[in-house]
Amino acid sequence: MTVKLHCFGESGHSYKAALALTLAGIDWTPVYVDFFKGGGRSPEHLTLNPMGECPVLVDGDLTLTQSGVILDYLSEKTGRFGLHDPAIRRDVLRWVLWDNHKMSSVAGVTRFLMNFLPVDKQPAEVIAWHQGRLRGALKTLDAALAGRDWLVGPDVTAADISCCSYLFYPEPFGFDRAEYPNIDRWLDGLKALPGWKHPYDLMPRAYPAAA
Amino acid sequence: MTVKLHCFGESGHSYKAALALTLAGIDWTPVYVDFFKGGGRSPEHLTLNPMGECPVLVDGDLTLTQSGVILDYLSEKTGRFGLHDPAIRRDVLRWVLWDNHKMSSVAGVTRFLMNFLPVDKQPAEVIAWHQGRLRGALKTLDAALAGRDWLVGPDVTAADISCCSYLFYPEPFGFDRAEYPNIDRWLDGLKALPGWKHPYDLMPRAYPAAA
Repeated sequence: MTVKLHCFGESGHSYKAALALTLAGIDWTPVYVDFFKGGGRSPEHLTLNPMGECPVLVDGDLTLTQSGVILDYLSEKTGRFGLHDPAIRRDVLRWVLWDNHKMSSVAGVTRFLMNFLPVDKQPAEVIAWHQGRLRGALKTLDAALAGRDWLVGPDVTAADISCCSYLFYPEPFGFDRAEYPNIDRWLDGLKALPGWKHPYDLMPRAYPAAA
Repeated sequence: MTVKLHCFGESGHSYKAALALTLAGIDWTPVYVDFFKGGGRSPEHLTLNPMGECPVLVDGDLTLTQSGVILDYLSEKTGRFGLHDPAIRRDVLRWVLWDNHKMSSVAGVTRFLMNFLPVDKQPAEVIAWHQGRLRGALKTLDAALAGRDWLVGPDVTAADISCCSYLFYPEPFGFDRAEYPNIDRWLDGLKALPGWKHPYDLMPRAYPAAA
Protein backbone atom coordinates (compact mmCIF):
# COMPACT_ATOMS: atom_id res chain seq x y z
CA MET A 1 0.00 0.00 0.00
CA THR A 2 1.27 3.45 -0.89
CA VAL A 3 2.33 5.57 2.08
CA LYS A 4 0.49 8.91 2.25
CA LEU A 5 2.08 12.10 3.53
CA HIS A 6 -0.24 14.98 4.42
CA CYS A 7 1.93 17.97 3.67
CA PHE A 8 2.54 21.14 1.64
CA GLY A 9 5.56 22.30 -0.29
CA GLU A 10 6.39 25.33 1.83
CA SER A 11 6.61 23.19 5.00
CA GLY A 12 10.18 22.34 5.92
CA HIS A 13 8.85 20.05 8.62
CA SER A 14 6.98 18.12 5.92
CA TYR A 15 10.12 18.07 3.80
CA LYS A 16 11.97 16.10 6.49
CA ALA A 17 9.50 13.24 6.07
CA ALA A 18 9.22 13.62 2.29
CA LEU A 19 13.01 13.60 1.83
CA ALA A 20 13.49 10.53 4.06
CA LEU A 21 10.74 8.66 2.18
CA THR A 22 12.33 9.58 -1.13
CA LEU A 23 15.94 8.78 -0.14
CA ALA A 24 14.74 5.39 1.15
CA GLY A 25 12.98 4.66 -2.15
CA ILE A 26 9.59 4.12 -0.48
CA ASP A 27 6.47 4.31 -2.63
CA TRP A 28 4.63 7.39 -1.29
CA THR A 29 2.27 10.09 -2.39
CA PRO A 30 1.66 13.59 -1.03
CA VAL A 31 -1.81 14.66 0.17
CA TYR A 32 -1.94 18.44 -0.07
CA VAL A 33 -2.96 20.41 3.04
CA ASP A 34 -3.98 24.02 2.31
CA PHE A 35 -2.24 25.11 5.48
CA PHE A 36 -2.05 28.88 4.89
CA LYS A 37 -5.84 28.93 4.42
CA GLY A 38 -6.58 27.02 7.64
CA GLY A 39 -6.19 23.47 6.32
CA GLY A 40 -4.31 22.47 9.47
CA ARG A 41 -7.38 23.42 11.53
CA SER A 42 -10.00 21.66 9.37
CA PRO A 43 -12.03 18.98 11.19
CA GLU A 44 -10.56 16.33 8.85
CA HIS A 45 -6.98 17.34 9.59
CA LEU A 46 -7.56 17.73 13.33
CA THR A 47 -8.90 14.16 13.38
CA LEU A 48 -5.56 13.02 11.92
CA ASN A 49 -3.53 15.37 14.11
CA PRO A 50 -5.11 17.28 17.03
CA MET A 51 -1.93 19.37 17.17
CA GLY A 52 -3.05 20.90 13.84
CA GLU A 53 0.35 20.48 12.19
CA CYS A 54 1.99 18.97 9.13
CA PRO A 55 3.33 16.46 8.28
CA VAL A 56 1.09 13.49 9.01
CA LEU A 57 2.17 10.10 7.68
CA VAL A 58 -0.42 7.40 7.04
CA ASP A 59 0.91 3.89 6.39
CA GLY A 60 -2.03 1.48 6.32
CA ASP A 61 -3.63 1.54 9.77
CA LEU A 62 -0.78 3.56 11.24
CA THR A 63 -1.02 7.36 11.54
CA LEU A 64 2.06 9.23 12.77
CA THR A 65 2.62 12.91 13.48
CA GLN A 66 5.71 15.00 14.32
CA SER A 67 8.51 14.80 11.80
CA GLY A 68 10.90 13.37 14.44
CA VAL A 69 8.52 10.49 15.14
CA ILE A 70 8.10 9.84 11.41
CA LEU A 71 11.90 9.78 11.00
CA ASP A 72 12.08 7.30 13.90
CA TYR A 73 9.50 5.09 12.17
CA LEU A 74 11.27 5.29 8.80
CA SER A 75 14.57 4.39 10.48
CA GLU A 76 13.02 1.26 11.93
CA LYS A 77 11.26 0.40 8.67
CA THR A 78 14.28 0.89 6.41
CA GLY A 79 17.30 0.34 8.67
CA ARG A 80 18.59 3.76 7.64
CA PHE A 81 18.93 7.25 9.15
CA GLY A 82 20.29 6.08 12.51
CA LEU A 83 17.33 6.26 14.88
CA HIS A 84 17.13 2.42 14.71
CA ASP A 85 20.79 1.97 15.71
CA PRO A 86 21.48 1.70 19.47
CA ALA A 87 25.08 2.87 18.94
CA ILE A 88 24.11 6.31 17.62
CA ARG A 89 20.39 6.64 18.32
CA ARG A 90 20.66 9.12 21.21
CA ASP A 91 23.15 11.32 19.40
CA VAL A 92 20.86 11.46 16.36
CA LEU A 93 17.84 12.17 18.58
CA ARG A 94 19.81 14.94 20.26
CA TRP A 95 20.13 16.77 16.93
CA VAL A 96 16.51 16.11 15.99
CA LEU A 97 15.40 17.67 19.29
CA TRP A 98 17.80 20.60 18.92
CA ASP A 99 16.52 21.15 15.40
CA ASN A 100 12.90 21.26 16.58
CA HIS A 101 13.77 23.66 19.38
CA LYS A 102 16.41 25.95 17.91
CA MET A 103 16.79 25.50 14.16
CA SER A 104 13.78 24.55 11.98
CA SER A 105 11.32 26.21 14.33
CA VAL A 106 13.15 29.54 14.12
CA ALA A 107 13.97 29.28 10.39
CA GLY A 108 10.39 28.28 9.57
CA VAL A 109 8.82 31.15 11.49
CA THR A 110 11.25 33.72 10.06
CA ARG A 111 10.63 32.54 6.50
CA PHE A 112 6.87 32.56 7.05
CA LEU A 113 6.82 36.08 8.46
CA MET A 114 9.06 37.45 5.68
CA ASN A 115 7.48 35.70 2.71
CA PHE A 116 3.96 34.51 3.35
CA LEU A 117 2.47 37.50 5.17
CA PRO A 118 1.47 40.69 3.33
CA VAL A 119 4.30 43.23 3.55
CA ASP A 120 2.23 45.62 5.69
CA LYS A 121 1.58 42.85 8.22
CA GLN A 122 5.19 41.72 8.63
CA PRO A 123 6.27 42.43 12.23
CA ALA A 124 9.72 44.00 11.84
CA GLU A 125 10.83 43.63 15.45
CA VAL A 126 9.73 39.97 15.62
CA ILE A 127 11.54 39.19 12.36
CA ALA A 128 14.77 40.86 13.53
CA TRP A 129 14.61 38.99 16.84
CA HIS A 130 14.16 35.64 15.08
CA GLN A 131 16.99 36.39 12.68
CA GLY A 132 19.28 36.88 15.68
CA ARG A 133 18.21 33.52 17.12
CA LEU A 134 18.67 31.92 13.71
CA ARG A 135 22.26 33.21 13.43
CA GLY A 136 23.03 31.57 16.77
CA ALA A 137 21.61 28.24 15.61
CA LEU A 138 23.40 28.39 12.25
CA LYS A 139 26.69 29.11 14.03
CA THR A 140 26.22 26.04 16.26
CA LEU A 141 25.36 23.89 13.23
CA ASP A 142 28.29 25.18 11.16
CA ALA A 143 30.75 24.51 14.01
CA ALA A 144 29.41 20.96 14.45
CA LEU A 145 29.98 20.24 10.75
CA ALA A 146 33.63 21.37 10.71
CA GLY A 147 35.71 18.54 9.23
CA ARG A 148 32.69 16.24 8.98
CA ASP A 149 30.45 15.07 6.16
CA TRP A 150 27.48 14.31 8.44
CA LEU A 151 26.39 15.38 11.91
CA VAL A 152 26.55 11.89 13.45
CA GLY A 153 28.68 8.96 12.29
CA PRO A 154 29.85 8.20 8.75
CA ASP A 155 26.49 8.34 6.94
CA VAL A 156 23.52 10.63 6.51
CA THR A 157 21.09 10.29 9.44
CA ALA A 158 17.82 11.79 10.64
CA ALA A 159 19.99 14.48 12.30
CA ASP A 160 21.04 15.80 8.88
CA ILE A 161 17.59 15.38 7.34
CA SER A 162 15.94 17.25 10.20
CA CYS A 163 18.44 20.12 10.42
CA CYS A 164 18.68 20.78 6.67
CA SER A 165 14.99 21.05 6.03
CA TYR A 166 14.52 24.81 5.69
CA LEU A 167 17.95 25.51 4.22
CA PHE A 168 17.13 24.42 0.65
CA TYR A 169 14.31 26.96 0.21
CA PRO A 170 14.90 29.91 -2.11
CA GLU A 171 12.90 32.56 -0.22
CA PRO A 172 14.98 34.99 1.87
CA PHE A 173 14.87 34.56 5.65
CA GLY A 174 18.31 35.66 6.80
CA PHE A 175 20.37 32.63 5.75
CA ASP A 176 23.24 33.12 3.30
CA ARG A 177 25.14 29.92 2.53
CA ALA A 178 28.34 31.87 1.85
CA GLU A 179 28.51 32.87 5.53
CA TYR A 180 28.52 29.25 6.73
CA PRO A 181 31.10 27.25 4.73
CA ASN A 182 30.59 23.96 6.55
CA ILE A 183 26.82 24.13 6.14
CA ASP A 184 27.32 25.06 2.49
CA ARG A 185 29.46 21.98 1.84
CA TRP A 186 27.10 19.74 3.83
CA LEU A 187 24.07 20.93 1.83
CA ASP A 188 25.97 20.05 -1.37
CA GLY A 189 26.59 16.59 0.14
CA LEU A 190 22.89 16.14 0.84
CA LYS A 191 21.99 17.31 -2.67
CA ALA A 192 24.40 14.74 -4.11
CA LEU A 193 22.68 11.80 -2.38
CA PRO A 194 21.07 9.36 -4.85
CA GLY A 195 17.42 10.31 -5.18
CA TRP A 196 17.66 13.73 -3.50
CA LYS A 197 14.96 16.16 -4.54
CA HIS A 198 14.11 19.77 -3.75
CA PRO A 199 11.07 20.30 -1.48
CA TYR A 200 9.16 22.01 -4.29
CA ASP A 201 9.73 18.95 -6.51
CA LEU A 202 8.33 16.60 -3.85
CA MET A 203 5.22 18.32 -2.53
CA PRO A 204 2.44 20.54 -3.94
CA ARG A 205 2.85 24.22 -3.09
CA ALA A 206 0.42 26.85 -1.80
CA TYR A 207 2.27 29.57 -3.73
CA PRO A 208 3.65 27.93 -6.87
CA ALA A 209 4.67 31.28 -8.37
CA ALA A 210 6.21 32.73 -5.23
CA ALA A 211 9.83 31.84 -5.88
CA MET B 1 28.24 7.17 41.70
CA THR B 2 26.05 10.26 42.06
CA VAL B 3 24.53 11.53 38.83
CA LYS B 4 25.40 15.18 38.13
CA LEU B 5 23.04 17.59 36.40
CA HIS B 6 24.51 20.81 35.03
CA CYS B 7 21.58 23.18 35.37
CA PHE B 8 20.10 26.33 36.90
CA GLY B 9 16.84 26.90 38.70
CA GLU B 10 15.26 29.23 36.17
CA SER B 11 15.70 26.66 33.36
CA GLY B 12 12.51 24.74 32.66
CA HIS B 13 14.47 22.51 30.32
CA SER B 14 16.74 21.60 33.25
CA TYR B 15 13.67 21.04 35.41
CA LYS B 16 12.49 18.26 33.07
CA ALA B 17 15.63 16.25 33.88
CA ALA B 18 15.72 17.28 37.57
CA LEU B 19 12.08 16.30 38.09
CA ALA B 20 12.49 12.91 36.38
CA LEU B 21 15.61 12.16 38.46
CA THR B 22 13.76 13.11 41.62
CA LEU B 23 10.52 11.23 40.84
CA ALA B 24 12.63 8.14 40.05
CA GLY B 25 14.46 8.42 43.38
CA ILE B 26 17.89 8.58 41.74
CA ASP B 27 20.81 9.93 43.77
CA TRP B 28 21.76 13.14 41.94
CA THR B 29 23.28 16.53 42.59
CA PRO B 30 22.94 19.82 40.68
CA VAL B 31 26.01 21.57 39.26
CA TYR B 32 25.10 25.25 38.92
CA VAL B 33 25.62 26.92 35.52
CA ASP B 34 25.61 30.74 35.67
CA PHE B 35 23.71 30.84 32.40
CA PHE B 36 22.49 34.46 32.42
CA LYS B 37 26.11 35.60 32.81
CA GLY B 38 27.43 33.51 29.92
CA GLY B 39 27.97 30.22 31.77
CA GLY B 40 26.51 28.27 28.84
CA ARG B 41 29.25 29.71 26.59
CA SER B 42 32.18 29.07 28.93
CA PRO B 43 34.93 26.79 27.53
CA GLU B 44 34.17 24.21 30.25
CA HIS B 45 30.47 24.10 29.44
CA LEU B 46 31.00 24.06 25.67
CA THR B 47 33.26 21.03 26.14
CA LEU B 48 30.34 19.24 27.82
CA ASN B 49 27.78 20.60 25.34
CA PRO B 50 28.83 22.41 22.15
CA MET B 51 25.20 23.52 21.76
CA GLY B 52 25.79 25.77 24.79
CA GLU B 53 22.60 24.70 26.54
CA CYS B 54 21.36 23.29 29.83
CA PRO B 55 20.74 20.65 31.08
CA VAL B 56 23.72 18.33 30.75
CA LEU B 57 23.58 15.02 32.61
CA VAL B 58 26.79 13.26 33.59
CA ASP B 59 26.47 9.67 34.82
CA GLY B 60 29.95 8.18 35.21
CA ASP B 61 31.53 8.13 31.74
CA LEU B 62 28.27 9.07 30.03
CA THR B 63 27.48 12.69 29.15
CA LEU B 64 24.04 13.45 27.72
CA THR B 65 22.51 16.70 26.47
CA GLN B 66 19.00 17.70 25.38
CA SER B 67 16.28 17.14 27.96
CA GLY B 68 14.43 14.73 25.63
CA VAL B 69 17.52 12.53 25.32
CA ILE B 70 18.01 12.60 29.10
CA LEU B 71 14.37 11.57 29.58
CA ASP B 72 14.94 8.73 27.10
CA TYR B 73 17.98 7.58 29.10
CA LEU B 74 16.16 7.81 32.43
CA SER B 75 13.25 5.81 30.97
CA GLU B 76 15.63 3.03 29.98
CA LYS B 77 17.50 3.19 33.30
CA THR B 78 14.42 3.18 35.53
CA GLY B 79 11.71 1.50 33.45
CA ARG B 80 9.50 4.55 33.97
CA PHE B 81 8.25 7.54 31.97
CA GLY B 82 7.32 5.54 28.83
CA LEU B 83 10.19 6.17 26.40
CA HIS B 84 11.42 2.60 27.14
CA ASP B 85 8.05 1.02 26.31
CA PRO B 86 7.53 0.00 22.67
CA ALA B 87 3.75 0.21 23.07
CA ILE B 88 3.70 3.94 23.83
CA ARG B 89 7.22 5.17 23.03
CA ARG B 90 6.34 7.01 19.79
CA ASP B 91 3.30 8.69 21.30
CA VAL B 92 5.40 9.91 24.23
CA LEU B 93 8.16 11.07 21.86
CA ARG B 94 5.55 12.93 19.82
CA TRP B 95 4.67 15.09 22.83
CA VAL B 96 8.31 15.58 23.80
CA LEU B 97 9.03 16.87 20.28
CA TRP B 98 5.91 19.05 20.24
CA ASP B 99 6.93 20.45 23.62
CA ASN B 100 10.40 21.36 22.36
CA HIS B 101 8.97 22.99 19.24
CA LYS B 102 5.79 24.66 20.41
CA MET B 103 5.46 24.70 24.19
CA SER B 104 8.57 24.94 26.43
CA SER B 105 10.53 26.83 23.80
CA VAL B 106 7.86 29.54 23.55
CA ALA B 107 7.06 29.63 27.29
CA GLY B 108 10.77 29.77 28.16
CA VAL B 109 11.52 32.64 25.79
CA THR B 110 8.46 34.64 26.89
CA ARG B 111 9.32 34.22 30.56
CA PHE B 112 12.95 35.17 29.91
CA LEU B 113 12.05 38.33 28.00
CA MET B 114 9.47 39.44 30.59
CA ASN B 115 11.40 38.67 33.77
CA PHE B 116 15.14 38.39 33.21
CA LEU B 117 15.77 41.36 30.95
CA PRO B 118 15.85 44.95 32.27
CA VAL B 119 12.43 46.56 31.74
CA ASP B 120 13.82 49.07 29.22
CA LYS B 121 15.24 46.23 27.11
CA GLN B 122 12.09 44.12 26.95
CA PRO B 123 10.93 43.93 23.31
CA ALA B 124 7.17 44.55 23.54
CA GLU B 125 6.29 43.35 20.04
CA VAL B 126 8.34 40.14 20.42
CA ILE B 127 6.73 39.41 23.80
CA ALA B 128 3.20 39.94 22.46
CA TRP B 129 3.92 37.70 19.45
CA HIS B 130 5.24 34.91 21.70
CA GLN B 131 2.27 35.22 24.04
CA GLY B 132 0.01 34.61 21.03
CA ARG B 133 1.96 31.49 20.11
CA LEU B 134 1.89 30.34 23.72
CA ARG B 135 -1.91 30.66 23.88
CA GLY B 136 -2.15 28.38 20.84
CA ALA B 137 0.09 25.77 22.45
CA LEU B 138 -1.73 25.93 25.80
CA LYS B 139 -5.05 25.45 23.98
CA THR B 140 -3.72 22.32 22.25
CA LEU B 141 -2.37 20.97 25.54
CA ASP B 142 -5.58 21.73 27.45
CA ALA B 143 -7.70 19.99 24.81
CA ALA B 144 -5.44 16.92 24.87
CA LEU B 145 -5.87 16.64 28.65
CA ALA B 146 -9.69 16.73 28.60
CA GLY B 147 -10.95 13.71 30.53
CA ARG B 148 -7.43 12.38 31.05
CA ASP B 149 -5.02 12.31 33.99
CA TRP B 150 -1.91 12.04 31.78
CA LEU B 151 -1.07 12.82 28.16
CA VAL B 152 -0.25 9.22 27.16
CA GLY B 153 -1.52 6.03 28.81
CA PRO B 154 -2.52 5.53 32.45
CA ASP B 155 0.65 6.87 34.14
CA VAL B 156 2.88 9.91 34.16
CA THR B 157 5.37 9.81 31.25
CA ALA B 158 8.12 11.94 29.76
CA ALA B 159 5.34 13.65 27.77
CA ASP B 160 3.89 15.14 30.97
CA ILE B 161 7.30 15.90 32.48
CA SER B 162 8.43 17.69 29.34
CA CYS B 163 5.26 19.71 28.74
CA CYS B 164 4.76 20.84 32.36
CA SER B 165 8.24 22.20 32.87
CA TYR B 166 7.66 25.95 32.60
CA LEU B 167 4.14 25.90 34.02
CA PHE B 168 5.15 25.65 37.70
CA TYR B 169 7.17 28.87 37.69
CA PRO B 170 5.75 31.87 39.57
CA GLU B 171 7.00 34.65 37.25
CA PRO B 172 4.37 36.08 34.87
CA PHE B 173 4.67 35.11 31.19
CA GLY B 174 1.09 35.05 29.97
CA PHE B 175 -0.09 31.78 31.51
CA ASP B 176 -3.03 31.83 33.92
CA ARG B 177 -4.00 28.38 35.20
CA ALA B 178 -7.62 29.48 35.64
CA GLU B 179 -8.00 29.83 31.86
CA TYR B 180 -6.99 26.20 31.22
CA PRO B 181 -8.97 23.93 33.57
CA ASN B 182 -7.55 20.65 32.25
CA ILE B 183 -3.97 21.90 32.54
CA ASP B 184 -4.78 23.21 36.03
CA ARG B 185 -6.03 19.80 37.17
CA TRP B 186 -3.10 18.00 35.49
CA LEU B 187 -0.54 20.25 37.23
CA ASP B 188 -2.19 19.40 40.56
CA GLY B 189 -1.83 15.72 39.62
CA LEU B 190 1.87 16.18 38.91
CA LYS B 191 2.35 18.08 42.17
CA ALA B 192 0.70 15.20 44.05
CA LEU B 193 3.17 12.60 42.75
CA PRO B 194 5.34 11.11 45.52
CA GLY B 195 8.60 13.04 45.62
CA TRP B 196 7.47 15.96 43.43
CA LYS B 197 9.38 19.17 44.06
CA HIS B 198 9.22 22.71 42.69
CA PRO B 199 12.07 23.69 40.30
CA TYR B 200 13.37 26.26 42.77
CA ASP B 201 13.60 23.54 45.44
CA LEU B 202 15.64 21.28 43.15
CA MET B 203 18.20 23.57 41.50
CA PRO B 204 20.24 26.64 42.53
CA ARG B 205 18.86 29.91 41.12
CA ALA B 206 20.51 32.86 39.42
CA TYR B 207 17.94 35.24 40.92
CA PRO B 208 17.01 33.76 44.30
CA ALA B 209 15.07 36.86 45.31
CA ALA B 210 13.28 37.38 42.01
CA ALA B 211 9.98 35.74 42.85
